[in-house]
Amino acid sequence: MIVSDRPTVSAGVLTQNVIHAACVDYTRQVLASGGLRAVVVNSGNANCCTGEQGVIDTQKTAALAAQHLKLEAGQIGVASTGVIGHTLDMAKVETGVIEASQKLKADPRPFMDAILTTDLVEKWAASEVGNDTVYSPAHPHPTESSPNGVIYGVAKGSGMIAPNMATMLGFITTDLDVTGLDLQAMLKRAADQSFNCMTVDGDTSTNDMLLVLANGASGVKVSAEEFEAMLTDVCVSLAKQIARDGEGATKLVEVIVRGSGDPVKVARTIGESPLVKTAMFGCDPNWGRILAAAGRSGVPFAPVDTKLVVRARDEEFLLFQAGEPTDFDPKRVSAALKSDHVVIDLTLGEGEVAKVYTCDFGYGYVRINAEYHT
Amino acid sequence: MIVSDRPTVSAGVLTQNVIHAACVDYTRQVLASGGLRAVVVNSGNANCCTGEQGVIDTQKTAALAAQHLKLEAGQIGVASTGVIGHTLDMAKVETGVIEASQKLKADPRPFMDAILTTDLVEKWAASEVGNDTVYSPAHPHPTESSPNGVIYGVAKGSGMIAPNMATMLGFITTDLDVTGLDLQAMLKRAADQSFNCMTVDGDTSTNDMLLVLANGASGVKVSAEEFEAMLTDVCVSLAKQIARDGEGATKLVEVIVRGSGDPVKVARTIGESPLVKTAMFGCDPNWGRILAAAGRSGVPFAPVDTKLVVRARDEEFLLFQAGEPTDFDPKRVSAALKSDHVVIDLTLGEGEVAKVYTCDFGYGYVRINAEYHT
Repeated sequence: MIVSDRPTVSAGVLTQNVIHAACVDYTRQVLASGGLRAVVVNSGNANCCTGEQGVIDTQKTAALAAQHLKLEAGQIGVASTGVIGHTLDMAKVETGVIEASQKLKADPRPFMDAILTTDLVEKWAASEVGNDTVYSPAHPHPTESSPNGVIYGVAKGSGMIAPNMATMLGFITTDLDVTGLDLQAMLKRAADQSFNCMTVDGDTSTNDMLLVLANGASGVKVSAEEFEAMLTDVCVSLAKQIARDGEGATKLVEVIVRGSGDPVKVARTIGESPLVKTAMFGCDPNWGRILAAAGRSGVPFAPVDTKLVVRARDEEFLLFQAGEPTDFDPKRVSAALKSDHVVIDLTLGEGEVAKVYTCDFGYGYVRINAEYHT
Repeated sequence: MIVSDRPTVSAGVLTQNVIHAACVDYTRQVLASGGLRAVVVNSGNANCCTGEQGVIDTQKTAALAAQHLKLEAGQIGVASTGVIGHTLDMAKVETGVIEASQKLKADPRPFMDAILTTDLVEKWAASEVGNDTVYSPAHPHPTESSPNGVIYGVAKGSGMIAPNMATMLGFITTDLDVTGLDLQAMLKRAADQSFNCMTVDGDTSTNDMLLVLANGASGVKVSAEEFEAMLTDVCVSLAKQIARDGEGATKLVEVIVRGSGDPVKVARTIGESPLVKTAMFGCDPNWGRILAAAGRSGVPFAPVDTKLVVRARDEEFLLFQAGEPTDFDPKRVSAALKSDHVVIDLTLGEGEVAKVYTCDFGYGYVRINAEYHT
């Protein structure tokens, strides 16, 4: 559970999937009322496709949390992740709610551990006022205690991310004063530049949820620009952590596409191509698969204006230009592609820049998803 | 090479990919001229992204074939399949053209073998006038010699088919008299009900090509309805053979969706979902992944009107109805899913029926595509 000791300003981005869990509808209502004070999350069971019982169990979960936190059920957001089609074991939920409410403390680690499913690592990101560094597991904060004025996010992800996002949950808290800011609009824009770059519009799982709770406890207020930049930084860091920890993934793949028309569509087509993703797993500089994915995206471009660069391990390789491959050294590129972070940078001409985060696609993905039984 | 000993009526469906080989443009021109008499195909090298040299080599290939077949270069269709970005070894092409032109015979087997790449098996289908049976490798013709009035097709496929079709080549010949028939329109409709059900509109590789050559040698003429039915039967049989032989595939998966709105879009979203395809590989009756894929397809439907059936090994299992899973026996369904042909049948309400052919998705796909180097 995440609990604020005072009222919050809240916002949320929730799944648009026709098939979704009762907790999605419930939490959407709580957000609409403006009274969100706490979030209760269970993992292992998504409580989705569970009919009327699923609705009752979500309400019961919120009521139990409210009872033990001395709040109202209408102030509790509910999130679930796990297998679908099984009703919740409410005895377990009750035990969990009681235990969690007794152990509440400032340390976010027990929460970020508790929400994981097939994730291999914890995911968190923090941005503090007046400091450009975004802290994360790879760049931990130098001191135990944070100053006032922090945006702190935790997430769980996994699944292949794109094109079939497994349930993604993200919870962002801040002690900044957001009075007068349009938190919902900011969260939507931040999600569009981060979590929504991992996937296709509307291509969300049954239980996806991203919530932000701002309680102003620090009394610190920053400009709208600064707040939105901090919020976006936290979301982008979490999205990259999720992509890098995709099921069976060995690397984070950033796809950048420049061009007129619809570069987002091109970047997504490349980022979702199993042929590109298996080539990345195999450290294969297979520019042909990248070009062919771009070519079938439905976005027109002239092959002769096309330039393809990959970056990995501080090296940059020009693979394709003016309609033909360059005479790059495949062995040297392949060695660099062993990196856990690869950037595919495709220019189709002048125009906008789009970015998509994805991961490679190997035996691990098949193992996890073929041997995972409902 | 395929050669007709007399003029033909021809038609073709060729890739729409922005990135495509010179042979695609060349063959499109030959089709437009109406003079197609022969097709020369090479496998192992797609001659794509090879710039001006690629165009010259395609023309040279056609000229070589014309010279040795005593035809004009403008009567020769050219098709290529294989790696992209490498220029053709024209010495090899010349040797091949000379050898093939000396060995021409009625037996289609050497041709259907020669065009394969990662395909594991030959693919052919035949339909003869006055006989409803569609012959194929699984149902060979009882006699060596066919009567007059046959539509005979061969194909190569492989790749994951959807969503990233590797090069698909299909060549259909017939000795039927097609005078007065709109062969191009019939081929397009037949392709839409077969090859295009394996993939997304426009989602074609750099070298895809489906050609039909009708030379009327039998003097037999059938009604437009009968001809189109025979042509469609041959295309559907070839498409199923291609899907079943997808890289690393262990089974053919037929996805049928009934409903208003856009059932084709729903069927494609399910058929392309790596989570559904890995579940099929794992023989896992994971109805949740099928429903979740339908739910994120962008097509609205009411979960309560939804019914999901799977069929395999002459058994039929109702997995989901009225918003909730049924109490099916997962072990029994899983045993049936070991079949090499599984039908996923999803009803979202009243309406049209759409069908998509795909395959499962296992370790073999990753092995072939991660370890395949350019």
